[in-house]
Amino acid sequence: MIKHALPVTRDADFAAWYQAVITEADMAEESGVRGCMVIRPWGYGIWERIQRLLDDRIKATGHDNCYFPLFIPLSYFEKEAEHVDGFAKEMAVVTHHRLIADGKGGLVPDPSAKLEEPLVVRPTSETVIGVAFARWVQSWRDLPVLINQWANVVRWEMRTRMFLRTAEFLWQEGHTAHATEAEAREETLRMVEVYRDFAETCVAMPVIVGEKPENERFPGAVGTWSIEAMMQDGKALQAGTSHFLGTNFSSAQGIRFQNKDGQLELAQTTSWGMSTRMIGGLIMVHGDDDGLRVPPRIAPWQIVIVPMLRDNDEDEALIAYAKDIQSNLSTLTALGEPVRALLDLKPAKPATKRWGWVKKGAPIVIEIGGRDMAGGNVSMIRRDRLYRDDGKLDSQVVLRGNFEADAPQLLADIQQALFDQADARLKANIAPVSDWSAIEAMFADGQRNPGWADVAWSKPTGTVLDAIVERLKALKLTLRNVPIGQTAHPDAACIFAGDPAVERVLVGRAY
Amino acid sequence: MIKHALPVTRDADFAAWYQAVITEADMAEESGVRGCMVIRPWGYGIWERIQRLLDDRIKATGHDNCYFPLFIPLSYFEKEAEHVDGFAKEMAVVTHHRLIADGKGGLVPDPSAKLEEPLVVRPTSETVIGVAFARWVQSWRDLPVLINQWANVVRWEMRTRMFLRTAEFLWQEGHTAHATEAEAREETLRMVEVYRDFAETCVAMPVIVGEKPENERFPGAVGTWSIEAMMQDGKALQAGTSHFLGTNFSSAQGIRFQNKDGQLELAQTTSWGMSTRMIGGLIMVHGDDDGLRVPPRIAPWQIVIVPMLRDNDEDEALIAYAKDIQSNLSTLTALGEPVRALLDLKPAKPATKRWGWVKKGAPIVIEIGGRDMAGGNVSMIRRDRLYRDDGKLDSQVVLRGNFEADAPQLLADIQQALFDQADARLKANIAPVSDWSAIEAMFADGQRNPGWADVAWSKPTGTVLDAIVERLKALKLTLRNVPIGQTAHPDAACIFAGDPAVERVLVGRAY
Repeated sequence: MIKHALPVTRDADFAAWYQAVITEADMAEESGVRGCMVIRPWGYGIWERIQRLLDDRIKATGHDNCYFPLFIPLSYFEKEAEHVDGFAKEMAVVTHHRLIADGKGGLVPDPSAKLEEPLVVRPTSETVIGVAFARWVQSWRDLPVLINQWANVVRWEMRTRMFLRTAEFLWQEGHTAHATEAEAREETLRMVEVYRDFAETCVAMPVIVGEKPENERFPGAVGTWSIEAMMQDGKALQAGTSHFLGTNFSSAQGIRFQNKDGQLELAQTTSWGMSTRMIGGLIMVHGDDDGLRVPPRIAPWQIVIVPMLRDNDEDEALIAYAKDIQSNLSTLTALGEPVRALLDLKPAKPATKRWGWVKKGAPIVIEIGGRDMAGGNVSMIRRDRLYRDDGKLDSQVVLRGNFEADAPQLLADIQQALFDQADARLKANIAPVSDWSAIEAMFADGQRNPGWADVAWSKPTGTVLDAIVERLKALKLTLRNVPIGQTAHPDAACIFAGDPAVERVLVGRAY
Repeated sequence: MIKHALPVTRDADFAAWYQAVITEADMAEESGVRGCMVIRPWGYGIWERIQRLLDDRIKATGHDNCYFPLFIPLSYFEKEAEHVDGFAKEMAVVTHHRLIADGKGGLVPDPSAKLEEPLVVRPTSETVIGVAFARWVQSWRDLPVLINQWANVVRWEMRTRMFLRTAEFLWQEGHTAHATEAEAREETLRMVEVYRDFAETCVAMPVIVGEKPENERFPGAVGTWSIEAMMQDGKALQAGTSHFLGTNFSSAQGIRFQNKDGQLELAQTTSWGMSTRMIGGLIMVHGDDDGLRVPPRIAPWQIVIVPMLRDNDEDEALIAYAKDIQSNLSTLTALGEPVRALLDLKPAKPATKRWGWVKKGAPIVIEIGGRDMAGGNVSMIRRDRLYRDDGKLDSQVVLRGNFEADAPQLLADIQQALFDQADARLKANIAPVSDWSAIEAMFADGQRNPGWADVAWSKPTGTVLDAIVERLKALKLTLRNVPIGQTAHPDAACIFAGDPAVERVLVGRAY
């Protein structure tokens, strides 16, 4: 039996395993500040790769980056009743702008420096960006406005989990204004498609694109679309959302324009976001019992070179040999970008380094000992195929020239292999279910990875929908989304209400 | 006489001119939130270029990016008496984590959701990062720790000015811990040199590197080094600082390590930062009476192509011609990066677009009319040489093939020309001054661009220094820095105290 690198396996305790990956891969840690984490270099390096690749796509679709204030005056929220109801319970409020000594060696907020109007730390920026849009938009010529912001936001969560749900998190939020509903709806779908493409192409994370049911919409939205990814425990993770806001925000904020006929109209707005949550999804889609596995496109380092230094005369030659390989690799292009190869010269034992990089999930680790160098070889470990069939670590001795020549294709293969594994799992774990008792059986206690149920429904609204949501809640289930482009079988009946179905909806447990 | 594009000139009112550049170049605007600005695409695009180029240098010197919490518990500040004294008067304090309805249609902080310990919105992160370092550093093997963070910070300023002094601003803050004082001092100087190189090479902004006098040190620092740039009104702008913190923070925060002899020692720490203030400096160093001039290395778009569309049959061919030029330019390399060429197809009049890009300071604007196309030409405007000697706009008709071939060199020339102009101004406006009355004369009311006085001094400390600072304050002067590598003439006397001088210090007005 293989002795894995993590102290706990996915099968034994998925939640503990998740935390172990974060710790053992040095991705993040508790900060000492309630609900906030410290993102360490490997975790932040992955976020930087996500930023770079997603930002390229956001710009390629015509959006410009801007920056809006961290603080939102209370009164901005008062304009948007439905929106604030969705966030009001969990916002950080700044009330003072100065500290003074309390006379006992401590500090307190200065009572004489109380703000006239408290400021909310942004939980999302629709309100403050809408105020700017109202200034920017006067005529149809000013439309569309297509902007995006990379920022930190704060939602005061009571139960937090690193990357998945933290009080402060990092994200991008796109905000756009358009002259027509058709154009705004097109934008909403364009951006959820950008998220799908990014998730699948870059994070090797297959997702289902669909519209959220009414009860799962963003506060204030007319329609919300999401990408849903399947974690290895069968739960869903909403990894990106795109909202069509209609005129709900523009009417509250006065975003009006003169159309080509000279009449005043309300702009149609959208918003869409993806956050550091994606890193939590990455862990739960690609991690294994030896730690994280990072797809090459988003790996801060794709190939890590570890010379097996022994504090002896041979070290200098080993380092030169390793540097030469690193330098050759860095001139290559893989997956459309220069190869990112690191030479690890930190003072630690080679075995510690090897397992450190395995746990971090670097796609390829190259070890170079004296014997490798003498033979003109390298010893290569592929993170996606760590063990041989006999359970031994699969470290392959390869001629260095061959390795260098093959590295770009190898990285592309690893990217594809990670996607294929995740895609097979997603497909195998979505089950068409046609009656309620089958759902109860599927999600009975003790079932391992029940996945998602794919059911026909009549798209109920209001109190009928509320009742269904309550029934699902008893099984800890939620409605995930209505996959785009699917229709119910014409003869199907709604699994909840029995009336004729109009579409299919995914049901599952979720993060 | 030239009719310039801005409503106010530098000579007429420098402060109003500064604001006009920001407005007319669409860089930023008031947000409606006190002391916070909205950074618009052109301003943020410049910041993204600054980030990219500075981040490359920060990583090349061995630093990794991380992310630390926005909120800092009050108690963290209580440990650091001197540090908090420097910031306590101007911090945003979060006291509640929920809003509730006030019964009158408004919202108020929920009294039942008061935080047990108030949280400070970070004004800088030494305290919270120090707590992390104390966890990370146990042995000499863990050192050095070399990290950096890109983040927003908040300092509650009473008088704000866009980019120069805002309540919230964006920056990078580097934080490092070392085993020895020598190594930490070396790091401090390495990073101020990175700032110098970045400012001069990328922003084309010549600077003076030097150590700040004792009274100008960062709160809690043993020594602070800065780069000082000269604005066109002769004032200084501190554009980046690097601090040697000794063991001041590590002793308060318990950053201790076991050295090679097995003994516990305090780590030596540093911190260093550069912010969106740099953009204010860029404006005041390179702007002219027609708006901003952006050095090509940090211009979001280096070449903007404006086809002179007339809503007629010729438009399609003009756009194709322009696209072809854009596509050719984009394959070229200038200043070590792919050329960034934009095709401007927005619905606006060609003249409006031309002057829009002149005010934004795009290095090169290409206009293409029917006649240009027919002749296989383009009409080119260089932003650094906008007018001919006769005062007419210098729009040059050039064969497109010649323009494309010359573009990389042209961009390099513009980068150099902007540096040379600023450098000549800096050198011409630092005056060696050897007695106090000359200082009074130099900075008498009504003097235009008095620049900086370069004076010998005896490096006084304590109350002697305090008295000098007061004397300077009466003339609105401050001690800027003691340039690195300079010494006082052996016979010189301190301009303030008359005793033998040991070094030279720069004196000037400052932002």
